[in-house]
Amino acid sequence: MKPHADWDELERIFPSIREYQRLAAKHGIDDIFQDNGGKILQVLLVLGLTQLPGREGNDAKDADGNEFELKSVNILKTVNFSTHHHMNPVIIKKYRQVDWIFATYEGIELKEIYRLTPETLEPFYLRWEEKWHQDGRKDINNPKIPVSYVQAHGERLYASNPPPAPTVVQPAINFDPEQPD
Amino acid sequence: MKPHADWDELERIFPSIREYQRLAAKHGIDDIFQDNGGKILQVLLVLGLTQLPGREGNDAKDADGNEFELKSVNILKTVNFSTHHHMNPVIIKKYRQVDWIFATYEGIELKEIYRLTPETLEPFYLRWEEKWHQDGRKDINNPKIPVSYVQAHGERLYASNPPPAPTVVQPAINFDPEQPD
Repeated sequence: MKPHADWDELERIFPSIREYQRLAAKHGIDDIFQDNGGKILQVLLVLGLTQLPGREGNDAKDADGNEFELKSVNILKTVNFSTHHHMNPVIIKKYRQVDWIFATYEGIELKEIYRLTPETLEPFYLRWEEKWHQDGRKDINNPKIPVSYVQAHGERLYASNPPPAPTVVQPAINFDPEQPD
Repeated sequence: MKPHADWDELERIFPSIREYQRLAAKHGIDDIFQDNGGKILQVLLVLGLTQLPGREGNDAKDADGNEFELKSVNILKTVNFSTHHHMNPVIIKKYRQVDWIFATYEGIELKEIYRLTPETLEPFYLRWEEKWHQDGRKDINNPKIPVSYVQAHGERLYASNPPPAPTVVQPAINFDPEQPD
């Protein structure tokens, strides 16, 4: 085994990756390469939010101490935000107490951020509660919130300029008609 | 809400993050910030491996077409490699056919890479098979392989130089004895 020719390119870029990880660590994110760490950093910094430690409860707070639930989605992959893998009335009760911050990405590119109030999210909470009771008090596995609903009913807090060049995987193109795929 | 003072710093670094993501995309990794994407890229490039698409089967192959199972661990968090969340004889049969590549990280810093043969991993396969039968043919949830075993029994393929400065979350230090934590 020997290094790919692109290894030198990686080594050239990596000092900047370290800088980004140091910035992330300063804001409580210990691994940018897991659980969307490098994306959450963008949302925290552009909105001036502080991450709340631990996985229980809400995710971030602003300078006035208001707490928020943070969600993100890669719109190249799906049209829905994920919520919680064990949705039930205890979780819903916590959710009802805070605004939600929804961030959309194309790959790693932050596109838009929206804020939705408990009132705007109430139709989902009612539906999930109803389903939980109907299903015999069984936790719901990750009910979704459509991106379209968020865009239609949320307050838009941020919208990006387009990036200078694509950063997503491009489909392979067959330039040679003599050589079919 | 207004941006944190560090937002400018993020914007300064982000062009390099895009470069890294473009390099990753070229090698089949569509999101460096999820599932250790940015770390897997390091292992692929330093060993000259190609990622195999999809989540079934093995993870990478070398220039000669040999396939490998790839595993990584953050040694700041745990002393064991994870394996598979539904370990059973079908998975073990696949595992027995390939060498495994184990990569250790401190946060995002690649430290060492080891290669282990099927013979060296056989004690684990036997133990998992035995347990699976004893438990009434129940899949084992993510049995572990200790980092110490990998370091003792593997062929070391790579060892890093130390990074120029820490990139991990530093514990907060209370400098003022009048103000206890």
